[in-house]
This record gives sequence, structure tokens and C-alpha cells, in this order.
Amino acid sequence: MNTTPTNTSTDFFEVVKSRRAVKQYDASYQMSEAELKELLEIAGRAPSSWNLQHWKFFVITDQDAKQRLLPIAYGQQQVVDASAVIAVLGDLEANRNAEAVFGPAVAAGLMSAEVKQNLVAQINGAYTIPTVPRDEAIRNASLAAMTLMLAARAKGLDTCPMGGFDAQKFVEEFRVPSRYLPVMLITVGKAAQPGRPSNRFPVEETIVWNRF
Amino acid sequence: MNTTPTNTSTDFFEVVKSRRAVKQYDASYQMSEAELKELLEIAGRAPSSWNLQHWKFFVITDQDAKQRLLPIAYGQQQVVDASAVIAVLGDLEANRNAEAVFGPAVAAGLMSAEVKQNLVAQINGAYTIPTVPRDEAIRNASLAAMTLMLAARAKGLDTCPMGGFDAQKFVEEFRVPSRYLPVMLITVGKAAQPGRPSNRFPVEETIVWNRF
Repeated sequence: MNTTPTNTSTDFFEVVKSRRAVKQYDASYQMSEAELKELLEIAGRAPSSWNLQHWKFFVITDQDAKQRLLPIAYGQQQVVDASAVIAVLGDLEANRNAEAVFGPAVAAGLMSAEVKQNLVAQINGAYTIPTVPRDEAIRNASLAAMTLMLAARAKGLDTCPMGGFDAQKFVEEFRVPSRYLPVMLITVGKAAQPGRPSNRFPVEETIVWNRF
Repeated sequence: MNTTPTNTSTDFFEVVKSRRAVKQYDASYQMSEAELKELLEIAGRAPSSWNLQHWKFFVITDQDAKQRLLPIAYGQQQVVDASAVIAVLGDLEANRNAEAVFGPAVAAGLMSAEVKQNLVAQINGAYTIPTVPRDEAIRNASLAAMTLMLAARAKGLDTCPMGGFDAQKFVEEFRVPSRYLPVMLITVGKAAQPGRPSNRFPVEETIVWNRF
């Protein structure tokens, strides 16, 4: 039974309000490669430092791969029942993207070769600071992850961001290259049970105005 | 001249597509505390590990504070001209939020005291792993940051995520407690010049299907 997902508003504010962490999925609901690609194209519209696009989406849809993921995700059945599990990986060597990002701008006459050269040198310099590769990988991949979760909701689908998995075993089992850091697993599919609403601290407690 | 921001669609997909990094703002455009609070309430709807809400929003609207920020942001005029600069801080000690997050669930009979006790112990255990406090601060604060940028766009406003600032000097100048890590500065306001569109890698290059 490949039913249509619950219709939902695409209004941004409704999308944010209606997003919940969904842990029970309709195991019969499949998403096509085209649908997944569309979601990931939207996710990739997120901004990133120097536009280096520090993300790689490792998409698990094969039943066999889901079964191998199950123990790594501590037995959480959602990784099997969801239409897909998207491992959002952060690029620890995103500085290597700089040429590909800025080259076309030079070719199109939008950036001088000298400006590009300075930018690439600046980026490579930043990447010699020990905290930068990992911080940037996590920061920017997370921006894409958030966009992905909201995009799925706007399509009437649901997601769950999962930090609870054995990252080391994940890397080993799926032979993730050392260039990439698993930042988050996101299940995506059609909810079988709605997610539970969760509270937030009062907004006033999260804001500091102008001075500590 | 406190003009209304350019009207925009609140359709999620339009919001994502129309978001650009805006670096030139109408310096006369002011946002009220209520408007900023509304944006930050939406940002805080982001998910977070264990719902610990690893974010604190340090909001700079005072002209004096903006001027002090200017050299720390390497002279980027947008920090002065934007209606506000929101420093999204990540909480390095978010495990300390666990009692406040789960206490009400126990009080409401939704969670047993034992489950809560186990969860809090699990969280405190995780926070003894050296990479966890910083990784979680960056990851979760970034989820809120992305939601904030999209929320501003849905309100017809614009933003720029800024990594280019001296984080150490920022912490000193604004006496940011050591509990918090500056994850990103976000300018928000009314665009004086539209942001430039930026390219992305073809989506196919960002996806790996089922196996590396």
C-alpha cells in the first residue's frame, strides 16, 4: 500500500510548527530516487562557509543496507521502516572544494583570478587551524540537515534526526572515507504514528539582549 | 524611513529559493524586540540532541554595541547597518539543561522518575567524551541558526551568516561566559541591495547511494 503522505501546508511557519521527530514509519511507503534527489537539492541550498558545501548525503534505501544499519543504530526499528535513512556527512577537507566553487566565477568573468587565488589561500590557511575542519564540517552539514528536515515536512513527509548511533561502526560498516564525518542520521518517510510534541524553554530564557 | 520589507511568499520552497546572503542593509530599518523574539521563538523550534536546546541567542541591536562589534567583524559594515546581529551561541554544558527539560515530563506523569534518572545519567556520561560538548554545541546551534535564517526570509527580511569574525575578541568584548561558544553571527534586517545568487554543485555530486 503505497499511500500518499498526509497532505500538509507548505506555509513556512506551519512547516516549522508541524515538524516532529517521527520514530514510527509506514514500512510499505517508498520514495523514488527522484523524490529523494529533489529533497537533497533543496537541502543543498543551505548556505555554507565560503560556499564550500561541506556536505555529502549518504542515502540508504536498500533493505539489506538498512538491516546492516539496525544494530549500529542500537536496534531502532525506524531505520528499517523509514523510506530512507540519510546520513548527513560533513566534509573534513572542504577546502579542497574551493577551486571547483570559485573556478566557474573566474571563467564567467565574475571574479578575477587574483581574488580567487587569495580566497583559496585564505581558506587553506584557515584549514590549518586544528579546530576548523571538524567545526566547519559539523556546522555546515547541520545547516543542510535542518533544511532537509523542513523540506521533507513541506512535502508531507516526516523525519527524525538521530544522534544515537555508533559513528565508528557506521564508518567501518559502510566504508565511509576518512574525508567525511557522520554528523547526523535522518530517517525520512511516511509517519505511521505522529511524533510527540516536545516542549521548549520560554523564548525569553534563550535570549540575551546586548550585554551579558 | 522605516519602510515595510519586500513582501515575499511564505511558501517553504520559495523561502528556501529566495534566501541569499545579504550584505547591504537599510540602516534606517528597525526591528522591534517583539519581532526579534518571534523569529527566535521559531528558531528555537529546531530539534536538538535530547531536546537540550543547545543555543543561546545574543542579540545586538544597540548602536554602541554594533560599533564595538565592527572591528571584531573585520570592518564589515553590515553588522552596523543590519537591524540586529544575532550571535548564535552553542551551549558547551547543555547537559546541565537535562533536569529542566525532563523534570516537567515527570511532573506531568509522562515520564517516570527512573527513566528520567537514566536519561540524565546517559547524557552526563556522553558529556564526558571530549568531543561531545563542542560537537553538540555546534551541531544543534546550527540547526537553530538555519531555522532562524529561513524564518527571517519568510517574514520578508534578509540575513547573512557570518563566520568571518574574531571569536576570541568577540568573547572578550561582550564577556560571553565560557559556557557558550560563538557558532555563527547572523545579521538580519531589510536588504538595501539584493544578495547575489550563488551556485551549488550538481545534486548528483552530493549524493552517494547505499554504498561508497
